[in-house]
Amino acid sequence: MKIGIFYRTDYINAATQVYENLKSHVEVVFFKDSSEKVFVENGIDVAISVGGDGTVLRALKKVRCPVIGIKAGRLGFFSGYLVNEIDRLIEDLRTWNFTEDRRWTLRIESEDNQYFAINDAVLQKDVDQKIADFVVSMKDGTFYYHADGIVVSTPTGSSAYSLALGGPIMLPNVEAFEITPIAPQFLATRSLVIPSSERINVNASDPVNLVVDGDIVERTKSICVRKCTKNIVLLRPKGYDFSTSIKEKIGYGKMFLKNGIE
Amino acid sequence: MKIGIFYRTDYINAATQVYENLKSHVEVVFFKDSSEKVFVENGIDVAISVGGDGTVLRALKKVRCPVIGIKAGRLGFFSGYLVNEIDRLIEDLRTWNFTEDRRWTLRIESEDNQYFAINDAVLQKDVDQKIADFVVSMKDGTFYYHADGIVVSTPTGSSAYSLALGGPIMLPNVEAFEITPIAPQFLATRSLVIPSSERINVNASDPVNLVVDGDIVERTKSICVRKCTKNIVLLRPKGYDFSTSIKEKIGYGKMFLKNGIE
Repeated sequence: MKIGIFYRTDYINAATQVYENLKSHVEVVFFKDSSEKVFVENGIDVAISVGGDGTVLRALKKVRCPVIGIKAGRLGFFSGYLVNEIDRLIEDLRTWNFTEDRRWTLRIESEDNQYFAINDAVLQKDVDQKIADFVVSMKDGTFYYHADGIVVSTPTGSSAYSLALGGPIMLPNVEAFEITPIAPQFLATRSLVIPSSERINVNASDPVNLVVDGDIVERTKSICVRKCTKNIVLLRPKGYDFSTSIKEKIGYGKMFLKNGIE
Repeated sequence: MKIGIFYRTDYINAATQVYENLKSHVEVVFFKDSSEKVFVENGIDVAISVGGDGTVLRALKKVRCPVIGIKAGRLGFFSGYLVNEIDRLIEDLRTWNFTEDRRWTLRIESEDNQYFAINDAVLQKDVDQKIADFVVSMKDGTFYYHADGIVVSTPTGSSAYSLALGGPIMLPNVEAFEITPIAPQFLATRSLVIPSSERINVNASDPVNLVVDGDIVERTKSICVRKCTKNIVLLRPKGYDFSTSIKEKIGYGKMFLKNGIE
């Protein structure tokens, strides 16, 4: 089996430890800083990310194969193994004992460019810019917001920025987008849930930042967002599913004991 | 064409006016108080409801045919005509000039009974009862809430009780349930959005009220909720769709002018 490792630079020690452990069991084709601009067309069976959820996101966008997330500290939404669980990972790789967690993604078109997102596409004004008018239009209707920005997210992104803005938690296999305004005027704070078959146009009254999965990519007045044909695949240890990760990460829907949460 | 009229008793004057106007254009088979316990198997092409959204809900459950809602005052989520728009309604009936608004529904099983809901199924403690533990389980995971109750709603119900509890607005054609806890402990206030293909079990630590579309139907400790094979059909005037109704009713996503909402 051939693997590649992407790491976040401040996880270099943990990443080196992972590399040293793995190389006697599998062929490690590369060991790269995840901020490097590369795309690995083929040549590996699985990519391993050592870092946080952001590192996994970056790894997912650099490969066509499945990704396994390894994290120091606490588990993330995308990571399934802790740095000190390498023995378990080696055993799971040997027997290919994973849960395949397949997620659908977004395709975003601005006036001049095209992007691919796993979590979300955000149109957001600069801090020193005045509040903008946003028009969100689709086959099912048109909605207007006077706000700092608009987030269009996948179910995967529902536990990211949308959640921080008050949005619901969507299970990954829901076929719907979530649209959440950032700091809207006139109490229009609720999220809208829209079928994934829709094509969503967002138009701003002034040029604002387009932020794709957390990275500012350009300034624009309009984007069109729809479901992308590309799915991404995370490999997780058996038993660590989405419902477990939201309980672990944010304590949502956790078991309670007589005197509090377990 | 054969129609039947259901009215809310405090709308009797408006309803009589509707009846008097319609009877010279169509055959009015019945004129009934909507609180009457009846089911009209067949014999009418369309049922007309005169009252609020609750009257439309009740009418939808008493017939197999489409329903048209007429309202005094402001339009509701389910009504498309005002009492003073009878001439337009007569013309629309004559030319069958409607938008068909088809909604999917819930099937609810308690230990002993079975129900059908358009908006929601709610398990909710009495005011003088202590907070209960709720376990919500499905194929995709199990979630625990220490709360006053749990609401399982359709997209149609997302603009009803769920909205009042902080839930998102779902477009009617989204294939997902929404689960929203009522006054949960430990900050677990967010709604969960779940594919409509799921079968959702809700278990309470003590017997609580089961409320179906706003009516208390029994006390129970557990229910199973899934998508029902029955769709309901509302007829609305052309141009009055769901996005228009949420702008009219709650001002969400309304057009803004320079100095405020239009």
